[in-house]
Amino acid sequence: MSRIPTPPAPSKLAFVPFVSVADMMRLVNTLGAEQVITELAGYIEQDFRRWPDFDKTPRVASHSQDGVIELMPTADSDHYAFKYVNGHPGNGKSGHQTVTAFGVLSSVATGYPMLLSEMTVLTALRTAATSALVGRYLAPKGAEVMAMIGNGAQCEFQALGFRALTGINRIRLYDIDAKATEKAARNLRGQGFDVVSCKAAAEAVEGAQVITTCTADKQYATILTDNMVGSGVHINAIGGDCPGKTELHPDILTRAEIFVEYPEQTRIEGEIQQLAPDHPVTELWQVMRGEIPGRRDARQITLFDSVGFAIEDFSALRYIHDKIAGSDFFQPLDLLADPDDTRDLFGMLTRAG
Amino acid sequence: MSRIPTPPAPSKLAFVPFVSVADMMRLVNTLGAEQVITELAGYIEQDFRRWPDFDKTPRVASHSQDGVIELMPTADSDHYAFKYVNGHPGNGKSGHQTVTAFGVLSSVATGYPMLLSEMTVLTALRTAATSALVGRYLAPKGAEVMAMIGNGAQCEFQALGFRALTGINRIRLYDIDAKATEKAARNLRGQGFDVVSCKAAAEAVEGAQVITTCTADKQYATILTDNMVGSGVHINAIGGDCPGKTELHPDILTRAEIFVEYPEQTRIEGEIQQLAPDHPVTELWQVMRGEIPGRRDARQITLFDSVGFAIEDFSALRYIHDKIAGSDFFQPLDLLADPDDTRDLFGMLTRAG
Repeated sequence: MSRIPTPPAPSKLAFVPFVSVADMMRLVNTLGAEQVITELAGYIEQDFRRWPDFDKTPRVASHSQDGVIELMPTADSDHYAFKYVNGHPGNGKSGHQTVTAFGVLSSVATGYPMLLSEMTVLTALRTAATSALVGRYLAPKGAEVMAMIGNGAQCEFQALGFRALTGINRIRLYDIDAKATEKAARNLRGQGFDVVSCKAAAEAVEGAQVITTCTADKQYATILTDNMVGSGVHINAIGGDCPGKTELHPDILTRAEIFVEYPEQTRIEGEIQQLAPDHPVTELWQVMRGEIPGRRDARQITLFDSVGFAIEDFSALRYIHDKIAGSDFFQPLDLLADPDDTRDLFGMLTRAG
Repeated sequence: MSRIPTPPAPSKLAFVPFVSVADMMRLVNTLGAEQVITELAGYIEQDFRRWPDFDKTPRVASHSQDGVIELMPTADSDHYAFKYVNGHPGNGKSGHQTVTAFGVLSSVATGYPMLLSEMTVLTALRTAATSALVGRYLAPKGAEVMAMIGNGAQCEFQALGFRALTGINRIRLYDIDAKATEKAARNLRGQGFDVVSCKAAAEAVEGAQVITTCTADKQYATILTDNMVGSGVHINAIGGDCPGKTELHPDILTRAEIFVEYPEQTRIEGEIQQLAPDHPVTELWQVMRGEIPGRRDARQITLFDSVGFAIEDFSALRYIHDKIAGSDFFQPLDLLADPDDTRDLFGMLTRAG
């Protein structure tokens, strides 16, 4: 009898660790969401502090009538990462998420992916981690109350992040949809927050030292008017994140000191698209390096004009890659062809047949 | 006894069909590689003929000392696609592929991915399909012999494509590495080709009506010198595809009529990076629409300055998406979060815990 060789199984080079939504939820629930947000904030701060090491580019957006699909790449000398993310404000009507995302971390030396991960849950966590980290630099001392205007998918993550990083435990909720507020109130009370549900944005901001705006309409909106914002407040503006989508009245912007992630992108996508292209802004990486002060006095209005930048996703993927090592929070995915002779892709194909 | 509800399984919205390398090889071996290349060429031709319908952008490249990682997005009004692809000429030394790739096809209406697919094998097939399709428009009538300079991973796919679309069955091989030529000769004879292995590029081009150059060095190289190219030849130049990487002597370029995919990208990456930025080129989509002639006479030298464009990957992903419908050539991947209430991502997370 002749020995028929079995075709060799793909080598380990062929496999990329894949973190599914179920894996991500297990990982987060095992560690606890506040713990994950806190650790993520540490990775993000570390990467912001070495900002000049990164290749940076505004995200590559493909706009349509219904929404936008974006690719957000960045790299340092060791790792490359990109995120795919969509934003479709009308998606809820058909039972789809407004925002879904996934991402890849790769080796710069070989170009090979090292991690493919869901990023719908992870983006919610890293966005909260970034906001809370920035809040630690900019919120007034002793802040205890946060207004949350917009009570959609991001809302509870923001609250957990601010509690973990700044100690804020009192949340004043408002959404144009009372059902969204009910949902957030229920979830946040379940996490031990002191929650007040409000019937208007003006009511929500009463007594708040931090105001978070996180609404999803793809249009110029005025969630906050000038008279609603008193001195000493920190505004964490999350929702305005693409051209034509803003949340704040321009008069607030001119009264505030504005902090941004990456000015080249924020001037296109953030609240400051309403201002002159040379309006002064402060880059957060310089604040985190201690080169520029954050909040300078108790009466100053500070504004984080958040749009979300690729380095935050890079940090998040790097964190997940570190966390899953030696765990079962991933499955190997046969994503890469790996012929025995790298020039013999065709031979690999025919031998498989 | 109380009934404890089981957590609902993720809905079908959460799952994205994933075509692994093993799935792709099964699909190709089931249909036959020539059949797949022929069908792919049909999809590519269809998409080239509706060129103005696409959002087009040069690929987004991240260069490093060792290679490049690129994202190649494009979209029409229904579908969005992108490919991730690396090019690392030194990868073979560590047993890695020079080029690996994967890609995603999405719905423009929802931003949701509809397909995640390996594209290392698929890129080899679509590159061959594009070359052979272009060859059908540009190769001299009655062409029977193709010279193949560079006998790496792409070589056999090119030969199969040209046989399927133009009838060429005689291949003259040359590579600076004799082992690569041996590998290609063995594979191609196994597919019924009439193969001649040559000891020099000048020998390989003797009597060839089509010359395919497909080498991988990331540097300016001169694979073809001016005296090697006679009248009436079609040159299919695949290997020069990034800044600083070319294969042809500029004197050949000035004697040839040059056909390109997307001039904005080819002027940066193709052979014509050696020419003035306004050197005339012909866009292939206009040839395929019949708006501009392809080959005009028997003595003309035609050159396809191929760099690979995102629409070819779009076509390839659209083809695979159509082919896997109702088949088992994929597995469902839990890539997307799908909470019952789209605003309640946090509730989905906590209920999973």
